[in-house]
Amino acid sequence: MANPTAAMLVIGDEILSGRTRDANMHHLAGRLTEVGIDLREVRVVADDRPAIVAALRALSAAFDHVFTSGGIGPTHDDITADCVAEAMAARIDVREDARALLAAHYDRQGLEFTAARMRMARIPDGATLIDNPVSVAPGFSLGNVHVMAGVPSIFTAMVASLLPTLTGGEPLRSVTVRIDRGEGDVAAPLGDLAARFDDLAFGSYPFQRDGRYGTNIVIRGTDGDRLAAAEADLRRLFPGVAA
Amino acid sequence: MANPTAAMLVIGDEILSGRTRDANMHHLAGRLTEVGIDLREVRVVADDRPAIVAALRALSAAFDHVFTSGGIGPTHDDITADCVAEAMAARIDVREDARALLAAHYDRQGLEFTAARMRMARIPDGATLIDNPVSVAPGFSLGNVHVMAGVPSIFTAMVASLLPTLTGGEPLRSVTVRIDRGEGDVAAPLGDLAARFDDLAFGSYPFQRDGRYGTNIVIRGTDGDRLAAAEADLRRLFPGVAA
Repeated sequence: MANPTAAMLVIGDEILSGRTRDANMHHLAGRLTEVGIDLREVRVVADDRPAIVAALRALSAAFDHVFTSGGIGPTHDDITADCVAEAMAARIDVREDARALLAAHYDRQGLEFTAARMRMARIPDGATLIDNPVSVAPGFSLGNVHVMAGVPSIFTAMVASLLPTLTGGEPLRSVTVRIDRGEGDVAAPLGDLAARFDDLAFGSYPFQRDGRYGTNIVIRGTDGDRLAAAEADLRRLFPGVAA
Repeated sequence: MANPTAAMLVIGDEILSGRTRDANMHHLAGRLTEVGIDLREVRVVADDRPAIVAALRALSAAFDHVFTSGGIGPTHDDITADCVAEAMAARIDVREDARALLAAHYDRQGLEFTAARMRMARIPDGATLIDNPVSVAPGFSLGNVHVMAGVPSIFTAMVASLLPTLTGGEPLRSVTVRIDRGEGDVAAPLGDLAARFDDLAFGSYPFQRDGRYGTNIVIRGTDGDRLAAAEADLRRLFPGVAA
């Protein structure tokens, strides 16, 4: 059975202006590979309602899961929850369960529960909350869209809360073989090997070290026996490569 | 006059599997901001022909420029040039100018000019080459699509070759004001300020340091006088903030 598919939507002007370097894509990509969900596409859009809604609609129709990061804080540019409600045609308002979580948190911290902070309790009807052990304000899942914070420590914690609730597939395994030859020498035999093992994915990553060219070949797939067979053939093609 | 708009398309299984952390998006975002081209969207797709062609068509129709990274090396999974030709309805074959560049390079290096390396001379009809001072194999521009390598040192060099040939707009300037208050306290006055200065973009980035909450406010725009006026108003709203 094919693994579930996924896309990620990163929301935020600060990534597109170059002010902030996104860290969440790399984290999510690694975690999804571990649980056997195939990340097929990532989009990054600005804090712009039509752009967010259009991307949500396209991605939630095309993939089994959509994971979003960013835009769920208390400020005027935090519009993700409202965009998800619009894209999924759900009603949205302050929801009592989220409001109670936040009220207790600010009470413990001795902070005022301002109208701005109350915005973080706006949750679409029908959504399931995603636990935020770092700063309490929850994410949520609505249909196949999972809405999480952009701050990396909170995003990471929410992914850890969410993933055990999703059904993954076979974890994607990989084997890396380092060959001390340039990519141009490796390309032809590698292409033949990839054609014979068309159930596996072959990637080729050139590097230069101490003035010499080399290539890392990465073979990916879910079937360990097939991976081992492809690796053995690759090593026969390039005898003497490092173990 | 509004600045030109742009999208980036990052091509490569290795980003989506979490094996490699993309570095090119952050580099391009910063460089485009400097030259006054507004990066509005980034997409990351796998080494998959239909996915690449569909993304190229959507982005080249929606934005003034599309910048791609990845998939122009010598191996079987390097299919970007052929995908661009398909998306833009151009013929593609080995082109003499690119072949001559590569032949001279491999001759100097004492390396064989293999059939695989010859793939890097496949350039669509009508395209303009982008100089690659690092490893010679060129990128190219076809219509509003600019095709560059994925290896970060080569991508960076190609961006430096390409950008002076494009017409930018007003550089986007920014001002950052650090406020020693949580985002929930800042949100309401900041929302009012953003509504009054609707020609500027306001971002709010919470942080925690030594157990205390703070917020960096970033104001962006092309008009220095308007930025200064907004900054002065913001400082009046939160007296005593750091200079």
